[in-house]
Order: sequence, then structure tokens, then C-alpha cells
Amino acid sequence: MTGDAQATKKRLLDAATREFATYGIAGARVDRIAASAGSNKAQIYHYFQSKDGLFDAVFNAIVANTVRDVPIDATDLPGYAGRLFDSYEAHPEVTRLATWHRLERADSQAPLESILASNRHKIDEIARAQRDGLLPTRYAPVDLLALIVHLAALWTATTPEYATLVVTHSRAHRRTIVTDAVAALLKP
Amino acid sequence: MTGDAQATKKRLLDAATREFATYGIAGARVDRIAASAGSNKAQIYHYFQSKDGLFDAVFNAIVANTVRDVPIDATDLPGYAGRLFDSYEAHPEVTRLATWHRLERADSQAPLESILASNRHKIDEIARAQRDGLLPTRYAPVDLLALIVHLAALWTATTPEYATLVVTHSRAHRRTIVTDAVAALLKP
Repeated sequence: MTGDAQATKKRLLDAATREFATYGIAGARVDRIAASAGSNKAQIYHYFQSKDGLFDAVFNAIVANTVRDVPIDATDLPGYAGRLFDSYEAHPEVTRLATWHRLERADSQAPLESILASNRHKIDEIARAQRDGLLPTRYAPVDLLALIVHLAALWTATTPEYATLVVTHSRAHRRTIVTDAVAALLKP
Repeated sequence: MTGDAQATKKRLLDAATREFATYGIAGARVDRIAASAGSNKAQIYHYFQSKDGLFDAVFNAIVANTVRDVPIDATDLPGYAGRLFDSYEAHPEVTRLATWHRLERADSQAPLESILASNRHKIDEIARAQRDGLLPTRYAPVDLLALIVHLAALWTATTPEYATLVVTHSRAHRRTIVTDAVAALLKP
């Protein structure tokens, strides 16, 4: 791929990330993405085949980024939850994309392999720390990981109404609630 | 309102609940709702003014039902979380509607008063139990309620990929993970 082509593709992915995060898969408009990227619909279909193909490319990229930027440390799960929280705060579009994906692809027969592989790796790391006696074994690894990832997203999942009740919370306070809750789950 | 009119309105709300839960606010189609209810678009606009008005009516009704069916018991918060879990399991459309609401109304300047009032009542109940020495005071009431409501929704918020890893979990097991996690937060 030429440098020009790569630059175009990058602009299309950036514009598509914004569009899908705002409007979801059904609500996103390919012509708006093309215009925002200074490109055209024909190029989108050339590179990504379809709107769904474009969403998959966007979603795979953000999953890869999140896995790379926030590696699991099974010996410090409150710290891991805190770094996940930091990542969600820095990239609110990631949580929105993941939520649209869940709502609009609930019946999908094609789970994304990148997400499955990332989850399996994290579950293995927790299982290993449990075998090494570094973590309590009260929860199965798959349940403990679910709890931690879910708790890290505590403040991104509040209703617009609840958000008005916690609008004065500092970021540091919200982070502490998350890490303290994970620590409480791990107490012997 | 005549009995016929009430029956029509009820059919429209039921059809709209299904349509909005499946497709969201932007994705919902008023003509599909009208057809499904054996009604027509003119009646929808007569009763609810707009598609947004219809969504508000649906959403206010499910909030009222959830508040009525799952009253808070601040002296037994693990039990409360378990009953919220039961409610989410029995009515998956409620979680989906709440999530669409969050994604599509994030910038709304008009938080729903029914949700605010319900949240304030629950926060007051937790504060009272803390004053009476029936609950630890480690978390502020607004933070503790956020944690409990969020944990109750643990399994409804998993990605489609994660769902494949926990597909063999029984409902009882998933419920226990929720109630145990809330109990762990409340340990002295």
C-alpha cells in the first residue's frame, strides 16, 4: 500500500471511530464518514467492503490498542482496574463503541477473535496467580475478571440522571471507588 | 379516555417497548410500531406527539415498574442486588432500553424526574441505615448505590465475546457472584 493510500485509510478509520462512537452502527452514515475524511464512499467500500466491515476494522483497532496499553497484572488487580479506569476516562469513545457493539451485535454469530484471545490470556494470568498463591481462589478466574472489568467501567455506565448526582466527584475520587471495590473483593 | 383508547395506547406502548429495545431511539421506526400495534402513525402522534415522546413514555413506564417491583432494603443490600439481578434477568428489554437511553440521550438537558426521584429515595435509605449503624460508612451513600446497581447488572453488560466464556453458568451461579460481591463491599 502506498503512503497516500495508508494516509487515506488512517483518516477514514479516525473519522469512522468518531461517527460510530456518536451514532452507533445503524445510525452511522458512510457519506458523513467519507466527507469528514476528505474521501468518498467508493474508497470506503474498496478498503472495507461495507459499513459493517468498516465498523469491524474500527473495533478491532481499539481492542488491540486497549490490550496493548493496559496489560493485565494479576498480582495487582486493583492497580489493573485503576489503569482500565484511566483508559476509559482518556478514551470515552472506546466504551461507547463497545456498548454499541454489544447492543447492535448481540445476536452476532461471529465473535471477534481478538477479544476472545485477549480475554483468554487475562483469565490464564489470573489462574496462574491463583495457583501460585498470590490471589484468593474464592472466585473462578472467569468470574473475577468479569467483576474487575465491569467495576472499572462503573462511572461510564451511570445513567444521565445519576451522572447529575456525582458531577462534583473528582476523577481521583471516582478512581479510588473503583480500586477500593476491587481490593474489597480480594480480601481473604 | 375511553376503554378503546386506553387499549390502543397500551398496545402502542407494548409495541414501542419491543421496537426501542431492539433498535434504539434513532433506529426505531414509527410505522413498524404502528403496524405491530394494529394502529397507525397518526394515532402515535396524537397520543405521544413524536417518536421521542413515545420513547419517554416507554422509559418512564419501565422505570416506574422497576422501582415498584424492586424496592430497596438498605439493611440487606446483597439481597437488594439479587432482586435487581432477578429483575434484569426477567426483563432484558429494560437493560437494553436503559443503555440506548444512555447512549442516545447522553447530552440531554432534561434528565427524567422519575429516575432522579427514585435515586434520591434510595440514597436517603442508605444514609439512614448508615446513621442507624446498620451499614458501614466506608462509602458515601451515592457511591455505594452506584456500586450496587452496577454490580447487579454485571452479566447483562458482558461483551458478546465474554458471554461465550460464561454460557454454561447457571442463573443461580451468576446471581451468587453478584450478591457475594456486594457482601464483600460491606464487610467491616
